[in-house]
Amino acid sequence: MFRKLLTLEEAKKIIDENFKPTQMDDEDVVLIEAYNRVFKENIISTIDVPPFNRSTVDGYAVKAEDTFNADENQPITLNITGTAFAGEQPKITITKGEAIEIVTGAPLPEGADAVIMLEDTEREDNQLQIYTAITPYTNVMKKGFDIKTGETILHTKQVLGASEIGAIAALGLTKIRCFKPPVIAILSIGNEITDTGKTLTPGKIFDINTYTLSAAVMECGAKPVTFGIIPDDKTTLRKTLTTALSSADAIITSGGVSIGPYDYTPQIVDSLGKPGVVISGIAVKPGKPTTVAFTQNTPIFSLPGNPTAALLMFYLLVRPVILRLCGKTPHEMQSIRAFAGTKLFSAKGRRTFVMVKLVIDLEKERLIAEPVTEASGAITTLTNADGFVEIPENQQYINKDEEIIIKLFRSA
Amino acid sequence: MFRKLLTLEEAKKIIDENFKPTQMDDEDVVLIEAYNRVFKENIISTIDVPPFNRSTVDGYAVKAEDTFNADENQPITLNITGTAFAGEQPKITITKGEAIEIVTGAPLPEGADAVIMLEDTEREDNQLQIYTAITPYTNVMKKGFDIKTGETILHTKQVLGASEIGAIAALGLTKIRCFKPPVIAILSIGNEITDTGKTLTPGKIFDINTYTLSAAVMECGAKPVTFGIIPDDKTTLRKTLTTALSSADAIITSGGVSIGPYDYTPQIVDSLGKPGVVISGIAVKPGKPTTVAFTQNTPIFSLPGNPTAALLMFYLLVRPVILRLCGKTPHEMQSIRAFAGTKLFSAKGRRTFVMVKLVIDLEKERLIAEPVTEASGAITTLTNADGFVEIPENQQYINKDEEIIIKLFRSA
Repeated sequence: MFRKLLTLEEAKKIIDENFKPTQMDDEDVVLIEAYNRVFKENIISTIDVPPFNRSTVDGYAVKAEDTFNADENQPITLNITGTAFAGEQPKITITKGEAIEIVTGAPLPEGADAVIMLEDTEREDNQLQIYTAITPYTNVMKKGFDIKTGETILHTKQVLGASEIGAIAALGLTKIRCFKPPVIAILSIGNEITDTGKTLTPGKIFDINTYTLSAAVMECGAKPVTFGIIPDDKTTLRKTLTTALSSADAIITSGGVSIGPYDYTPQIVDSLGKPGVVISGIAVKPGKPTTVAFTQNTPIFSLPGNPTAALLMFYLLVRPVILRLCGKTPHEMQSIRAFAGTKLFSAKGRRTFVMVKLVIDLEKERLIAEPVTEASGAITTLTNADGFVEIPENQQYINKDEEIIIKLFRSA
Repeated sequence: MFRKLLTLEEAKKIIDENFKPTQMDDEDVVLIEAYNRVFKENIISTIDVPPFNRSTVDGYAVKAEDTFNADENQPITLNITGTAFAGEQPKITITKGEAIEIVTGAPLPEGADAVIMLEDTEREDNQLQIYTAITPYTNVMKKGFDIKTGETILHTKQVLGASEIGAIAALGLTKIRCFKPPVIAILSIGNEITDTGKTLTPGKIFDINTYTLSAAVMECGAKPVTFGIIPDDKTTLRKTLTTALSSADAIITSGGVSIGPYDYTPQIVDSLGKPGVVISGIAVKPGKPTTVAFTQNTPIFSLPGNPTAALLMFYLLVRPVILRLCGKTPHEMQSIRAFAGTKLFSAKGRRTFVMVKLVIDLEKERLIAEPVTEASGAITTLTNADGFVEIPENQQYINKDEEIIIKLFRSA
């Protein structure tokens, strides 16, 4: 009757040992649509940014040494010989005693090495009075200061946010090579499951897991492909999984993993290829019957039908694998410290995850974690929870007011 | 020469006073694609979830009172009279002394009020031995326990994550009413700006802000519409802004806001409608020339051309407005405590934002914030920075090792 269940860490280790992602597909992505994509190749700049010495203010381009003796009581006077516009290389050259009007972003004229701000000057006709001494390259961004030719500006596997996309634009690129989002097949298993939009007949419930798992897969940056509801029938299940295997980078099923007579999932996923089932139950609550198989290098995660357990096991076991398939470095879920609002009990011998809601205790200026009333399979458990606390296998409870770490489902 | 600049808080207050979003458009969204959308109407359940008393384990449905005298030494024996399958209402009824085999997810047969786990029983033919007493509703999720008919399960303006989408699926809905993502027009202004993919002629630089601002707008959940590069030319600028006003919910321009002779943006945005320019410069560094106008209820943010300043001002001033246009409650940027790695100086009389990179100090087990070498307009300043620290107007510097709060550009 008893068998030794794996701990969560043992299960994670087994997944890591079996997960050998093959060559990842890549594709060209138009820069303007590259937000949140994962970048494939190092980008080495072929230009200097800026490509010329550039004024960073509105004012006058000068030779800095001409200003060295200027101060508030003894201004120096320069001749204004022209204007430098943004967007064109000035044709004029500056010699000793001269200044050229210049706008923000314009290239410095030949001979000039600094720009004095408009506010620090006074102009009368073509005579410029300067009241401040400036050093060379004041208010100038030197050619190549931002990015130098030959400099690597982005490294492979970077996720593209606003500033990374900006750096690529600075080089003038319009397309970049990104990893293709992996395809994740999603199946809901069980005779009692009915698709949304249909009428519920007696004994049936609506399919929840297809929707929660699809959203969770999108959150990783991967592409969910749903295979709908599969009845408790070996032939259909095997056929659907075989189809999914031909197109998906990973498969997630939910339901059909308990010990009942119609729980065929472990048996079928084991038969699809080597090594077959590598994890058959984990000492956690909820999520105990979770089964993991590998076939033709593709991971198949068989999660329980209970929506809370399915989503929790997704976050703990599946998410790191999907992030790696996306080309991302898996990172921990965000966490926050809080105080237990009540005594929290664990399930004997199993790592227990208690879903909690965070409440601000204004009086004591601290965060309180209140357990969310949990029933096996209740979807509202999840909508009411901000995150969960982990109670180790060898610990019976967490005391009221004990400081604990809450892993957050979504960022604040 | 001097004029009093607004503080950042004064600027934010003026925006709040002028920003009166009109009726927001909404649309039906297919549930499977609703991840990260903003929900419009309260959803009130028209069904009980689960719609029947449901077994949460594999085992035997019984009358709990039949088990009250059972213990490990004195098992009680019940007659097994049939099986309850998942997905159909059992036709059998349980009477005293009887048990029915039941699988996870199946409805309890009439007469039964609890389920005893398979592990706690022994079966021989149709005789079931029970070694544990159980109370009514053990291992049963009662009809309506998760969601009751008439219960509000989601409130307007909720952002749809995996669990919210799951709760909607539990009701069998396939489409939901969401706010339409607002359209945000983006213009880059300046004769020196060249579109990516083109060849740079002398004096020109590539357009960065169209790309960074589009990505930042997407990050909010809004829809960027780019209007490309507008030269320093009053007629073209006015014409493009007028076109943008007819379709966009907000406009963001960058460039052309300095005090040079070709900085037409403030003048033009002021002329487009009442109240016109409401903010004309803010005492911050970088970002000082930032101009904000409202016309026909549409906000127009005119940011500096410097990419770092433009993106910083986007995060500080524009993002909260766009989040509200999306139907979201604006939330603070995420922040983290760290120690200054060096003395950080401010600009006299201006709120100064120093871009920093976070480094882990292993020896002292703490986070160190190192300033990123900053040049006005360098895009690499942003790609190298994890966030920024704010130095108040009346403070000259932050000391090395002082504990400071870093606002993060992206979550960890």
